[in-house]
Amino acid sequence: MKKKVNAAILIIGNEILSGRTQDKNIIFISNWLNTNCGITVNEVRIIPDIKKIIVENVQILSKKYNYLFTTGGIGPTHDDITAQSISKAFKVKYEYHSEAYAILEKYYGKKKFNDGRKKMAKMPRGAKLIYNPSSAAPGFITKNVLSLPGVPSILNSMIENCKRYLVHGSKIHSRTINLYTVESNIAKNLGQIQKKYKKSVDIGSYPFFRLGKIGVAVVTRSSSLTKLKTVNKELMKLVKSKKILMLKV
Amino acid sequence: MKKKVNAAILIIGNEILSGRTQDKNIIFISNWLNTNCGITVNEVRIIPDIKKIIVENVQILSKKYNYLFTTGGIGPTHDDITAQSISKAFKVKYEYHSEAYAILEKYYGKKKFNDGRKKMAKMPRGAKLIYNPSSAAPGFITKNVLSLPGVPSILNSMIENCKRYLVHGSKIHSRTINLYTVESNIAKNLGQIQKKYKKSVDIGSYPFFRLGKIGVAVVTRSSSLTKLKTVNKELMKLVKSKKILMLKV
Repeated sequence: MKKKVNAAILIIGNEILSGRTQDKNIIFISNWLNTNCGITVNEVRIIPDIKKIIVENVQILSKKYNYLFTTGGIGPTHDDITAQSISKAFKVKYEYHSEAYAILEKYYGKKKFNDGRKKMAKMPRGAKLIYNPSSAAPGFITKNVLSLPGVPSILNSMIENCKRYLVHGSKIHSRTINLYTVESNIAKNLGQIQKKYKKSVDIGSYPFFRLGKIGVAVVTRSSSLTKLKTVNKELMKLVKSKKILMLKV
Repeated sequence: MKKKVNAAILIIGNEILSGRTQDKNIIFISNWLNTNCGITVNEVRIIPDIKKIIVENVQILSKKYNYLFTTGGIGPTHDDITAQSISKAFKVKYEYHSEAYAILEKYYGKKKFNDGRKKMAKMPRGAKLIYNPSSAAPGFITKNVLSLPGVPSILNSMIENCKRYLVHGSKIHSRTINLYTVESNIAKNLGQIQKKYKKSVDIGSYPFFRLGKIGVAVVTRSSSLTKLKTVNKELMKLVKSKKILMLKV
């Protein structure tokens, strides 16, 4: 049986913290890791573009989890300081990566390969490249830290190139049942079922509003498909005994 | 002159971490704090519904920042453990709040006021209520920690009721100019301007794609409107000297 593999995401960017921009990378990376690699995201942090803070968070999160994904701060401008900060966090040199340099020089052409663009080839010594099919500038992996850009469309185009660097965990299976009821009607029973299967299945309940009706989505998650089915049978018994209507989706 | 006031946001919820649900609360709270209270969000963390982890994060973040906002985990089900965890973090009793109990009992009626619903009246001793105009169950403030629900529509309806508990900071002014250029064309100059005003103005640059064209949004932020205007004059000089087209919005 495969073991549990986990990850954290570090969003580096004032634009998310200030409320200017809606983050779309967390849900994308988390879904992708879950579905494709059996990796669970256990923590996310959003922090400003400040070197000291990036260094500190990279050190803490890369120790605490199997993988750390960073997004943002790998572009050509003054506020792009992720590569420098990761170099500092791991006490390695921040220098030109020869392959990245070659890729970028080819992409822009020698004449247009200015300082800002050259900066995107500077990485922590020993980093391996995460290729970028949409805008050339590569991401990179330093030890267990994978650094991707902040622009969602570019990040999305690169994510498959992370796969080769990741040890996969056991797949997490998930079922959702949508009930036309309120949480407090099933809270006690859900609590009892959760207690019974606390070691193998996670049960979450989330209120929803749909077409003017309120309901509860009950989400079960487990690495064991058998246990998941057992719990869902118990849930269906509960639904029948309480005569709750289900939303078919 | 008012001083700087900051805050952190702690999103408590497996549904966000697992990639099941798109978070909408970070951008909303951050914008509201910025615009209405002159409070800057300096850090966001997203963590699972695990007591030990909630306790630890509440202790760290409430010490580090002027205010901590938590979202999620204050409903009636077994996975709603925010109030218990905050009680533990501050070593105060977790008990019925008499006013919250009265509000909920009135809202549901004595007969329908079951255990799950009663749970929503349990809070850290000494907590003050954040009234909920949309679904009755109140949020609460414990020392400098404001606890709100995870459902965005309910959270949004309650946010104004947080205002009375917050000391306001100096307003952060912001300007955005959208340029039809690429980051690496202006990276060097932006860096020079940022260096010159590094103590008073924050300059961020963010690539955008609009109607098939690529561009850069240059965002400046400062508590001094005068300094902000000075920097924007310098930016306009740069735009003219490089003959960059601007997007009028």
